Amino acid sequence: MLNAIVLINTSPNTVRQTAERLAELEGISEVYSVCGRYDLVAIARVADFEHLANLVTERINMLEGIIETETLNALQVHSKHDLETMFSVGL
Amino acid sequence: MLNAIVLINTSPNTVRQTAERLAELEGISEVYSVCGRYDLVAIARVADFEHLANLVTERINMLEGIIETETLNALQVHSKHDLETMFSVGL
Amino acid sequence: MLNAIVLINTSPNTVRQTAERLAELEGISEVYSVCGRYDLVAIARVADFEHLANLVTERINMLEGIIETETLNALQVHSKHDLETMFSVGL
Amino acid sequence: MLNAIVLINTSPNTVRQTAERLAELEGISEVYSVCGRYDLVAIARVADFEHLANLVTERINMLEGIIETETLNALQVHSKHDLETMFSVGL
Amino acid sequence: MLNAIVLINTSPNTVRQTAERLAELEGISEVYSVCGRYDLVAIARVADFEHLANLVTERINMLEGIIETETLNALQVHSKHDLETMFSVGL
Amino acid sequence: MLNAIVLINTSPNTVRQTAERLAELEGISEVYSVCGRYDLVAIARVADFEHLANLVTERINMLEGIIETETLNALQVHSKHDLETMFSVGL
Amino acid sequence: MLNAIVLINTSPNTVRQTAERLAELEGISEVYSVCGRYDLVAIARVADFEHLANLVTERINMLEGIIETETLNALQVHSKHDLETMFSVGL
Amino acid sequence: MLNAIVLINTSPNTVRQTAERLAELEGISEVYSVCGRYDLVAIARVADFEHLANLVTERINMLEGIIETETLNALQVHSKHDLETMFSVGL
Amino acid sequence: MLNAIVLINTSPNTVRQTAERLAELEGISEVYSVCGRYDLVAIARVADFEHLANLVTERINMLEGIIETETLNALQVHSKHDLETMFSVGL
Amino acid sequence: MLNAIVLINTSPNTVRQTAERLAELEGISEVYSVCGRYDLVAIARVADFEHLANLVTERINMLEGIIETETLNALQVHSKHDLETMFSVGL
Repeated sequence: MLNAIVLINTSPNTVRQTAERLAELEGISEVYSVCGRYDLVAIARVADFEHLANLVTERINMLEGIIETETLNALQVHSKHDLETMFSVGL
Repeated sequence: MLNAIVLINTSPNTVRQTAERLAELEGISEVYSVCGRYDLVAIARVADFEHLANLVTERINMLEGIIETETLNALQVHSKHDLETMFSVGL
Repeated sequence: MLNAIVLINTSPNTVRQTAERLAELEGISEVYSVCGRYDLVAIARVADFEHLANLVTERINMLEGIIETETLNALQVHSKHDLETMFSVGL
Repeated sequence: MLNAIVLINTSPNTVRQTAERLAELEGISEVYSVCGRYDLVAIARVADFEHLANLVTERINMLEGIIETETLNALQVHSKHDLETMFSVGL
Repeated sequence: MLNAIVLINTSPNTVRQTAERLAELEGISEVYSVCGRYDLVAIARVADFEHLANLVTERINMLEGIIETETLNALQVHSKHDLETMFSVGL
Repeated sequence: MLNAIVLINTSPNTVRQTAERLAELEGISEVYSVCGRYDLVAIARVADFEHLANLVTERINMLEGIIETETLNALQVHSKHDLETMFSVGL
Repeated sequence: MLNAIVLINTSPNTVRQTAERLAELEGISEVYSVCGRYDLVAIARVADFEHLANLVTERINMLEGIIETETLNALQVHSKHDLETMFSVGL
Repeated sequence: MLNAIVLINTSPNTVRQTAERLAELEGISEVYSVCGRYDLVAIARVADFEHLANLVTERINMLEGIIETETLNALQVHSKHDLETMFSVGL
Repeated sequence: MLNAIVLINTSPNTVRQTAERLAELEGISEVYSVCGRYDLVAIARVADFEHLANLVTERINMLEGIIETETLNALQVHSKHDLETMFSVGL
Repeated sequence: MLNAIVLINTSPNTVRQTAERLAELEGISEVYSVCGRYDLVAIARVADFEHLANLVTERINMLEGIIETETLNALQVHSKHDLETMFSVGL
């Protein structure tokens, strides 16, 4: 399972709708509206690199309301939880 | 359950050890070593605000190797998964 | 009582009206027009996290004239004053 | 009463002690340890401009642990509360 | 006498007109068109804080051509000249 | 008379001494300790370009306590005051 | 053979088309859609400086969808591969 | 002879025309289209400060296609060449 | 084959040695010393994600002389060349 | 003849010596100490790309006192002067 953290800024007053549309995308596990310099943080959990490439370039960027994205690919994950099992049930 | 995404820069050549020590902290659910401008991204999942405050100011910042942190508190979460159940088992 | 400091930039010549509308929002204790890189700083004092989430994502961001906000959640407060009593009278 | 919001970065692992020392300074009403790009936000409430000048240049900057400060002078305040009375009791 | 240095960026090709209009505002002592990252630097010299607040929020920001301002309040002044006398004749 | 506005950051706890030493330099008319992102702003008023060059590269930069300077040469000045006369008495 | 790495930001939802049009330009060896702060990275491999000048100022910048480019000229190249032969076949 | 280096960003696809119009301005000695974060760098060589002021505020900024300029006044010049003679022939 | 572009800043006067050591690392295809804001750009070409993770976190960051890296993972590649064949011979 | 503009920051109080040492380097035509965000701007005029590469990576970066350089390669030059003849006499 590949993970990526996507930092997102949206156009004003579209935070909630954009978050909801993002969360429906296949491969997006969680979307948080956050405090600080960014509006949203999405966690992508996908089977392989092709899925990640498609998700980032073809689907996230196409969503209305999204002004700027910065994708941080996860190279390694350290966790007490067995994330692979927890999340892969639904991939 | 409260969530926060912590963007972290570490001193050179300490990425792995710092990630491992972070992942052992109570309240830290996952730690990713990432590409891009940050070295690590930690996901905190805690019971309430006091736990989050203690985690950020008293324990993460005290870890050796951590140069800079930027904590993005999650205000709302949108997800297909029932994160509360999935993660709260271990809180 | 949860506190947050919101750094705000407004569109030109809307500083005063935006400050007044902000100060009327439930949960906003004070709004300062300031010198420096920001136009306004609002202090939010709310009962719990849900109120803060709603205030930031649903109401502040919806105000006309607001271009950019950066919310700094207070994790701990240190003060000679008993802020909880002083401000909670009106919450 | 003059107000100022001081954005502060401290050296690593000195957030709590620095916040406590700041909160003891005459003229400092509240000190928040915060999420986001800054470590602390102090609210200064003083009688006049001379007190503010002395507080910022002579006392805050002299505190050990403080790396960087950015003071945002309040030009106008908008609030439901009668801040002058609430806080001036102790000035 | 209170002083403030206002760093200003204007919309292209409006530097001269904006400088002239600024220099006519009561409380603005000098306006310099400058090299470097800013277009103009205005020096405000006013009787008290209320005048400064009004000048910055109500009059400078309202001028056409002004895109961005950053006001640096002077806390203390060090000078061989008796600025108070030199400039207060006209306040 | 040539003018320049010098934005200065000093090492912590040296703001006052650095301001005083700067104000004694020939060609420096005023030094303000300020709020905001800079610590000091110095106004240079000199007879000609050679004096300005010498002041900036040979004397300001040599002062202990100065970490960073950014000099904004004034190209034109707009003022109600006859600055040339007011300040040139002492050049 | 001269090489240059061109960091590119495109207007939203034009990443793929812009990448394809770039890759067809003579002198552009590879175009990557990437994670992180940039949208695309193009690698230019050209015979001489004139070709590079023409490619950057006359052809890349003219492509629709390109908002911002930053060209990093390669001064020296270190590689296990004989890049000159591998790529010059097609120049 | 006074020199200044002007860093310039132009609107997309206007680099060449803007460079040519700049190079025709009296006082502009050379205009380079460059790699890196800027589009153009112009070298101004003028007789005195008034000419420089006029060139920067009245003529360069008025040119269509110019989005942003940052003028770096030369305080001193060090060169093996006798620039004064080389360039002053044409001033 | 996975590609990544790594933007690198080195400590002063170590550009050449660091470039040579980088170019010897398995998985690094080319290292360019460049003009502009970065010192080096390395192109990684590896078989799969695990190799990329190991290369970035365990080996590049461990090299002496490297101060800062920013890895841009390639999601998709567009090229006239059959890069897979050209480079995979040696993977 | 190839030209490049090198933006340079030096360590405090070393501006003059660093400028003089730079101006002696073969290939450096002029060095200006400047106002603004940079300390020095050097103009390189060299016969070909190899000379430029050597000058930037092997000699400029090796000079004591240089903290940061950003080289802007000139792709095209527009000038009333015949720079090639004026400067190539001494290359």
